[in-house]
Amino acid sequence: MKLPWSTVAIVGVGLIGGSLGKALLTRGLARRVVGIGRSKASLAEAMERQLVSEVSCDLAAVSEADFVVVATSVGSIPRLLEAADAHVAEGTLITDAGSTKQSVVSSWQKRRRHRGRFVGSHPLAGSHLRGPAAADATLFEGRVAVVTPAASTPEEDVEEVGSFWASLGSTVFVMKPREHDRILAMTSHAPHVLAAALAAVTPDADRRFTAGGWRDTTRVAGGDAELWADILLDNAAQVTKAVSTMHGYTQRMLDALAAGDRRRLVRLLTTAKDKRNALGS
Amino acid sequence: MKLPWSTVAIVGVGLIGGSLGKALLTRGLARRVVGIGRSKASLAEAMERQLVSEVSCDLAAVSEADFVVVATSVGSIPRLLEAADAHVAEGTLITDAGSTKQSVVSSWQKRRRHRGRFVGSHPLAGSHLRGPAAADATLFEGRVAVVTPAASTPEEDVEEVGSFWASLGSTVFVMKPREHDRILAMTSHAPHVLAAALAAVTPDADRRFTAGGWRDTTRVAGGDAELWADILLDNAAQVTKAVSTMHGYTQRMLDALAAGDRRRLVRLLTTAKDKRNALGS
Repeated sequence: MKLPWSTVAIVGVGLIGGSLGKALLTRGLARRVVGIGRSKASLAEAMERQLVSEVSCDLAAVSEADFVVVATSVGSIPRLLEAADAHVAEGTLITDAGSTKQSVVSSWQKRRRHRGRFVGSHPLAGSHLRGPAAADATLFEGRVAVVTPAASTPEEDVEEVGSFWASLGSTVFVMKPREHDRILAMTSHAPHVLAAALAAVTPDADRRFTAGGWRDTTRVAGGDAELWADILLDNAAQVTKAVSTMHGYTQRMLDALAAGDRRRLVRLLTTAKDKRNALGS
Repeated sequence: MKLPWSTVAIVGVGLIGGSLGKALLTRGLARRVVGIGRSKASLAEAMERQLVSEVSCDLAAVSEADFVVVATSVGSIPRLLEAADAHVAEGTLITDAGSTKQSVVSSWQKRRRHRGRFVGSHPLAGSHLRGPAAADATLFEGRVAVVTPAASTPEEDVEEVGSFWASLGSTVFVMKPREHDRILAMTSHAPHVLAAALAAVTPDADRRFTAGGWRDTTRVAGGDAELWADILLDNAAQVTKAVSTMHGYTQRMLDALAAGDRRRLVRLLTTAKDKRNALGS
């Protein structure tokens, strides 16, 4: 633990990056937070909303940081990790906040030499909203953050990244990147595929006959298509497996319907209800 | 239009029946609202919460009403409609609030002689909550109510039932029972099947790694299993068709994933996003 940090650099000042910056400043966990991005408008908005203490369009600004978080979309993380690593001071700790972990961690591991030290992370604290305007200093409070070391990652690096998320109010779990991706396929990626299918096939003229059920079930389908395409592509095999598992259960319900077997259908729906309600509303 | 009613009888004082009673009394649309049910506890709670002005355990109490609403679960509506019809004053208008309409309307039509006049209804204003404790006088405001006459139903009966829902703040649509069931299979029943499948197959140990997406997508699966079994069984063919249509779109996304075709995947997700966002959050 080396809290508070002197300078934290956050690459990407969207919902996650902006919320991170605001949380670090609000909680007094970092003296300086440098927001780094390509979009001058986003950086200006991040400054205006006091999500970060300074901004830069130049990735080389990570050289001033003693902790770096890459909080961009999944598709760009491996490239930005490599680029940031070329600029950091020797031994700087780096993490990311991407929704998939296997490809990010293995892309780092594939390179032979690094200046920094990297441990992957995934804060389970998204939203269908995007951008610095949606940033919220409390986004990580009471949420889960998963830290996904490679086999060779030193234990103290894992602990330091874990303490970063814990200091923002998150409960930290440590697991292998592959395990993370398998679990998230079921808890996040497959739900997105289902929600999207339902939203897409409901005829426009019938949308007025939807109520809370359709509205809730499809909500995540309103999320950014490019961002989700990258997540799904990056975890394609596990997503396909999770969707197939769900289809299996759906088919059991349809079989009970076809057989007019009310008892079996009630049993299947009760299992679903009990598991859903174990979470709370 | 014969507003306000002198006495409205509501069979079933759960979420829908209780909300109806409260809305009628709050808006001064009925002088008396008689809540009729089997459960003494529910009736007592309905009285305590002032959802109705009086209660009865005896269905014969509908004889005092100039308007009757059967607001019980789908499976019991045909039987209760027939039983209520034996007691109503000649010519009394009766409606229901069931989630499926074809079986309810045709069960009424199959009987040769009636004392009352019946037009089926479905207020699209449910909740995963149940019972009189969840009743809310504003439940029908700004929502849609569908009125589903049989081919032989007189136009003035349709208008009178329509005006009942309109007087509670709902926008009224009139359509054939079969058309209603086809649309609701997609906008309500199939979403329930999907949500239930997702909730059921997510391993208990992985539920801690869910976030807003899983939570929203599965919310309706927390609804009552018996009630939903009746709805799904009553509309089995249309539900199966709607689920199959959704699976078709899911398969197109999985095909794009398997082919690594990002452009196609983005297109499919964008269609879903645009259609979802056409509704608002």
